Amino acid sequence: MFVGNGFGKLAGSTQVNELGEIETPILLTSTLNVPRVADFLIDYMLSLPGNEEVQSVNPLVAETNDGFLNDIRGRHVSRDDVFAAIKGAKSGPVSEGSVGAGTGTVAFGFKGGIGTASRKLPARLGGFTVGVLVQTNFGGVLTINGAPVGRELGRYYLKDELAPADRRDSPDGSVIIVIATDAPLDARNLSRLAARAMMGLARTGASAGNGSGDYAIAFSTSADARIRPSNPRDPIVPRTLKTLGNDATSPLFLAVIEATEEAIYNSLFKATTTSGKGRTVEALPLDRTLEILRKHGLILPQP
Amino acid sequence: MFVGNGFGKLAGSTQVNELGEIETPILLTSTLNVPRVADFLIDYMLSLPGNEEVQSVNPLVAETNDGFLNDIRGRHVSRDDVFAAIKGAKSGPVSEGSVGAGTGTVAFGFKGGIGTASRKLPARLGGFTVGVLVQTNFGGVLTINGAPVGRELGRYYLKDELAPADRRDSPDGSVIIVIATDAPLDARNLSRLAARAMMGLARTGASAGNGSGDYAIAFSTSADARIRPSNPRDPIVPRTLKTLGNDATSPLFLAVIEATEEAIYNSLFKATTTSGKGRTVEALPLDRTLEILRKHGLILPQP
Amino acid sequence: MFVGNGFGKLAGSTQVNELGEIETPILLTSTLNVPRVADFLIDYMLSLPGNEEVQSVNPLVAETNDGFLNDIRGRHVSRDDVFAAIKGAKSGPVSEGSVGAGTGTVAFGFKGGIGTASRKLPARLGGFTVGVLVQTNFGGVLTINGAPVGRELGRYYLKDELAPADRRDSPDGSVIIVIATDAPLDARNLSRLAARAMMGLARTGASAGNGSGDYAIAFSTSADARIRPSNPRDPIVPRTLKTLGNDATSPLFLAVIEATEEAIYNSLFKATTTSGKGRTVEALPLDRTLEILRKHGLILPQP
Amino acid sequence: MFVGNGFGKLAGSTQVNELGEIETPILLTSTLNVPRVADFLIDYMLSLPGNEEVQSVNPLVAETNDGFLNDIRGRHVSRDDVFAAIKGAKSGPVSEGSVGAGTGTVAFGFKGGIGTASRKLPARLGGFTVGVLVQTNFGGVLTINGAPVGRELGRYYLKDELAPADRRDSPDGSVIIVIATDAPLDARNLSRLAARAMMGLARTGASAGNGSGDYAIAFSTSADARIRPSNPRDPIVPRTLKTLGNDATSPLFLAVIEATEEAIYNSLFKATTTSGKGRTVEALPLDRTLEILRKHGLILPQP
Repeated sequence: MFVGNGFGKLAGSTQVNELGEIETPILLTSTLNVPRVADFLIDYMLSLPGNEEVQSVNPLVAETNDGFLNDIRGRHVSRDDVFAAIKGAKSGPVSEGSVGAGTGTVAFGFKGGIGTASRKLPARLGGFTVGVLVQTNFGGVLTINGAPVGRELGRYYLKDELAPADRRDSPDGSVIIVIATDAPLDARNLSRLAARAMMGLARTGASAGNGSGDYAIAFSTSADARIRPSNPRDPIVPRTLKTLGNDATSPLFLAVIEATEEAIYNSLFKATTTSGKGRTVEALPLDRTLEILRKHGLILPQP
Repeated sequence: MFVGNGFGKLAGSTQVNELGEIETPILLTSTLNVPRVADFLIDYMLSLPGNEEVQSVNPLVAETNDGFLNDIRGRHVSRDDVFAAIKGAKSGPVSEGSVGAGTGTVAFGFKGGIGTASRKLPARLGGFTVGVLVQTNFGGVLTINGAPVGRELGRYYLKDELAPADRRDSPDGSVIIVIATDAPLDARNLSRLAARAMMGLARTGASAGNGSGDYAIAFSTSADARIRPSNPRDPIVPRTLKTLGNDATSPLFLAVIEATEEAIYNSLFKATTTSGKGRTVEALPLDRTLEILRKHGLILPQP
Repeated sequence: MFVGNGFGKLAGSTQVNELGEIETPILLTSTLNVPRVADFLIDYMLSLPGNEEVQSVNPLVAETNDGFLNDIRGRHVSRDDVFAAIKGAKSGPVSEGSVGAGTGTVAFGFKGGIGTASRKLPARLGGFTVGVLVQTNFGGVLTINGAPVGRELGRYYLKDELAPADRRDSPDGSVIIVIATDAPLDARNLSRLAARAMMGLARTGASAGNGSGDYAIAFSTSADARIRPSNPRDPIVPRTLKTLGNDATSPLFLAVIEATEEAIYNSLFKATTTSGKGRTVEALPLDRTLEILRKHGLILPQP
Repeated sequence: MFVGNGFGKLAGSTQVNELGEIETPILLTSTLNVPRVADFLIDYMLSLPGNEEVQSVNPLVAETNDGFLNDIRGRHVSRDDVFAAIKGAKSGPVSEGSVGAGTGTVAFGFKGGIGTASRKLPARLGGFTVGVLVQTNFGGVLTINGAPVGRELGRYYLKDELAPADRRDSPDGSVIIVIATDAPLDARNLSRLAARAMMGLARTGASAGNGSGDYAIAFSTSADARIRPSNPRDPIVPRTLKTLGNDATSPLFLAVIEATEEAIYNSLFKATTTSGKGRTVEALPLDRTLEILRKHGLILPQP
């Protein structure tokens, strides 16, 4: 885990950092829902076959604040919602935009949401894949691939400009960045990977204000890197695993930076204009955005 | 906040460390109850007059695992319990022993629980008070003021010896250490104070195993040290406060170490034999303990 | 202090972070010179009037690796050099480009060096100034204000491409970022400021590889925020100071990001083609760079 | 590495923590000598066969402040001293007491110095060995195996009581704790091991004051756990290694705590009365110490 700015309510970080282990699915939600979602996630974990005697669960739940569009104080998340989200998880393309925990979020003054992107390294650098999923809800002036989109669209956005009161220190900015890789990395190098996510965020024009809860979680899906728990009745012995050295990390770092940047753009590209609480947040206008990118020569020609 | 060993589910740490601010009462509970207690604490905070528009709350909830005696999976804590705990808080002597979140805990193989102790510095060192409250639930071989009480009572205790299965890596050890002081310290020096709590713990014979969730939270009650939020409509200006320099911290560090050690002893002295789930954990036998202390000449004569 | 990537030899960080205090001038040098410069800095500090009894000095010395152009193993820095650097420090414009510790550095495949930039906040946000000085020596593909300068100039630079051997994991990338502000911030908020420097770095196309020693040091020049040491013969009392709250930090964070980005550009704009060890590293071609910026519409019209 | 209290000048920590690698012998010295020793250590490393092209070295040098007995400002350490120390290192019993960097140190008001101790785990817990070497130079009231030795000998020692001026905040306390184990642990678990050293320190009566530089360095001697650097010309592939899981750490933690405690005692037991600068610091009186231990029944009968 890496905490870019800790104005957030993410549950589960200290144990993940201490043990280098994630015990549950990672769930994303709205700020005040974190405890409810964590409680339902415990329900789910306790209900799994084989877990009948389990007495400790570390639910990993992250959030951003969607209180501008959502009745956040109502905490409208149910046990069924959580179970459905977990049971409905599947491989393949991920829904992006105004979905899930991204339904009510706002980024750069436009409708934010869920976005994903990935990079695959060339074979000589290991051939590994890095995938990033983001939940975007923060201020700043949007740039896309270097193009000053926010400036040209007249959207200099600080979260507080949308907030009900004249608040300089709005608490509702945040980004959650989840990084998955099949590269067999140990916990130390996963932490380094997570730290790079903030560099991808920086490239989009985010300014990581005081009120932002910016968290990155990186994990490896590789069975090679996993230290399997021993049978407690057996004597303690070292276990064999495979992992990458430090010298393999530079291309993975770059992959995280690029995939985070692109995932943030995708969260905007796929988001749709959304209303709530008598307010409306508009999606990024794609035509005008493409126009700005073209004008600045920042769309690469199709191959 | 200081994380001695992070095998725990404490909620709220990243925001406290980022902002140097505690937004809610600190609640202590059992491991799997953390989300429920946090959710009820949000209820409470949202219900306070003046908080009608509040959309962000950082509940601070800590835990130890009482699954040996308690039906921990049942999560038997109610909204009423949480509201009653908060509304019932009062100044004066604190209930110790097998109460509250300490009802089902086990420490050094004896019944653990809640304990408190404090130190008051002499006037030339500032005259400040340091108070410590602990929730004890961990392994080790008890020493008291240096006397080998655990050894002489034949209680070489590792948490797993009590655990249902033959588990070498029991997750249920933990200690929560809450430190309050009227010394006006800034967040950096409060973190240093919190780190010393582990030194007090060490003096009691605890061994801080892999499965322990050892957390210390230090805060100042001094209004002098508090940076009051400005009115967001006003221009930003520095605010005047009073705080102690680094050179004032050494005696406060020692006070934390001593008060933590004593609070742990008090949690044992006040705990009573407790049964649950068909098991019984006995209180530390005070007569024999005093005998051991006397035998070793480790009770100071009454003045 | 903030460690973006710790493959570096910076001296003095742990004490600065523990105490929130800087005891000496901050000196910048070449990697293998750090101990010599630190030793001469101790000489200097011990020689100051009033320091006759001083027995502890925490020299703060940072470095990047200039071994591509410089006979780095020779450690050609003298006591006179260090004393001259300290005594020659003055207010006013700072020398930039291929000077001092930046004489032999390389960034984005062009000649790097020393760069500075600053931002001044509007009065309603406090009117504070943030100044940044960088020592640039790292890989990546340069973008300037979003323009793909490195790509268009065909300079896809990884440090190791210049390295003597075919090294994938070159140790010689690094950036040192020194942030000074007159905003009266405490140590916690200065750390947050320092963390934002990595976001400014990210905007320039740096990729923060494994071999990079990326360090940011932030300090306040404000006497208001300083906790003056008490006379040890006096009783301990809190001392009055003025400091900014968390709600004042967002504009300062943005100032750090922008000033870091600009300081990095300035280090390139002012650097001159430099030769050493039979090699030459060319300065960024300013004409072609301006052309690229114009072509992409990324130079704002002069007011 | 673990920083218990960072009022110290240890060189090399950030790179060790980032990369999980130690590049040089670990040298211990006096505070103001750190840069000189680090520079001579660079000399040594550069002079090794095979290092002719090396351009980066991370010298790992720790210190305590011996300015009470030693002409610390004179920095009387030579290149020959450093080379002799490195070349003279051998296996077998380690010199303890008033030797090396421990020649001029003071602990608990008695002569401190170098001490070592170790623990070997039983076979079913892995059979690993943990060795600890300490350099003791700090305040507190000595307890030995729980016996109030300092109190009974009337030595309530704060470093500043010995200091030339009436200094409440003496900078000269410090302890360096070096932990070696043949257990194949990764960097994360070595950090956890290092953190436990402070718990061993706590058991001796140390109070870890503001002016203390308390650092623990833990490393594994196991070749199994080492990720060997790949040949940079080869494609990146994961490398096989053997390491212990989290569930193996608890007995190692206890071993660190016990060995640190004992090593500190040994530094006192072996130290000899030492004079310098017109002052004398007496060794712990062993006869009276044994008497106190016996009186309190805290020496276990010989088997």
